Amino acid sequence: MKIYDIPGFPNPLRIRIVLAEKRLTSEVEFVKVDLPAAEHKQPAFLAINPTGTVPVLQLDDGTFISECTAITEYLDNLDGKPVLTGANPKQKAIIHMMQKRAESELIDAIGFYFHHSTPGLGDTLRHYKYPDWSGRAEWGNLQREKAVAGMHYFNSVLGSRPFIAGESFSMADITVWAGLLFAGFAGIALPAECTDLSSWHARISDHPSVKSPA
Amino acid sequence: MKIYDIPGFPNPLRIRIVLAEKRLTSEVEFVKVDLPAAEHKQPAFLAINPTGTVPVLQLDDGTFISECTAITEYLDNLDGKPVLTGANPKQKAIIHMMQKRAESELIDAIGFYFHHSTPGLGDTLRHYKYPDWSGRAEWGNLQREKAVAGMHYFNSVLGSRPFIAGESFSMADITVWAGLLFAGFAGIALPAECTDLSSWHARISDHPSVKSPA
Repeated sequence: MKIYDIPGFPNPLRIRIVLAEKRLTSEVEFVKVDLPAAEHKQPAFLAINPTGTVPVLQLDDGTFISECTAITEYLDNLDGKPVLTGANPKQKAIIHMMQKRAESELIDAIGFYFHHSTPGLGDTLRHYKYPDWSGRAEWGNLQREKAVAGMHYFNSVLGSRPFIAGESFSMADITVWAGLLFAGFAGIALPAECTDLSSWHARISDHPSVKSPA
Repeated sequence: MKIYDIPGFPNPLRIRIVLAEKRLTSEVEFVKVDLPAAEHKQPAFLAINPTGTVPVLQLDDGTFISECTAITEYLDNLDGKPVLTGANPKQKAIIHMMQKRAESELIDAIGFYFHHSTPGLGDTLRHYKYPDWSGRAEWGNLQREKAVAGMHYFNSVLGSRPFIAGESFSMADITVWAGLLFAGFAGIALPAECTDLSSWHARISDHPSVKSPA
């Protein structure tokens, strides 16, 4: 398998953690995509992922899979023993619900803020992110507020259970963890009163696959 | 089980089609949520779904599941014979990838346009959708352009395969179909040149669970 991504970035890290968790690191060849140069917005890359995002997984039969949830479903189910996406209908439902919330209320909101209201990854890429519309900084700032509200929400969730989707580590923990990493890049601080989220973050940062991703 | 929703609306219909497809209609009691009155943005509803969206599934043990993908994972896996979310790792990956694209490139983009750049469901609800920011109509119009580009994308996908995620009907077909329904509500026409999408739409509209949802 091949993974098209760039090391150290939030969404790529989500899948590198999945690879480590599933002990699949040695099965994968990484192909670097130059995000600051907007390589992922050029025709050659859009042919493998029309939405222009990384990471992308290429299977050995040539099929391209993008979107972290889809890639995680593939990797987690390969050995018939899913541990990150749920082993029964109720677990699957709660994990997918929390995964979606981790994206919409946190990591995607931070992405909007980072790319619209800050210099982001620089002028080259900025051109591809809705250039020249007057409301962009205002929109990004609303998304920053949404992300901070998301932090408060996940803090409240962690007041009554050890992991984002219940009693065990799942892809939703990975997404929230990557969201907080992205928040740091973007200069959005974790509110001091989010103590349950903060202690969860310290614990997850020590989780083996998070500590040593692919 | 209970479903909190409102009949005839795009996202609620996605799950009502799933219920018909899985022959689970008789297992469910529906509770109507008054969207034009913004009932889904009030504290009583936010307690069952903090993101304030319908539909929400309540399991018999009291657990609330929101987000269509999560609800579909639950209902499709209940009998151990998933037909809408994939039966093997590659199917799961492609279906989840296309489901995400159907949301981000179509139904969610239309939702932004509908609620920001048109009167939407009226003034009561409008107040809850980012009130009073100057760029809202402009943002909505950019999202309308994104949705039309999404129609062209799905048209191209259907040029080489019969269903959105491959050789069989899946939740991604349901989402694109509901997206086109929403486009009609919002006054966004299917471009005449999208002939493969148009013939797929006619075929899917005749699919039994789509023709007779719960």
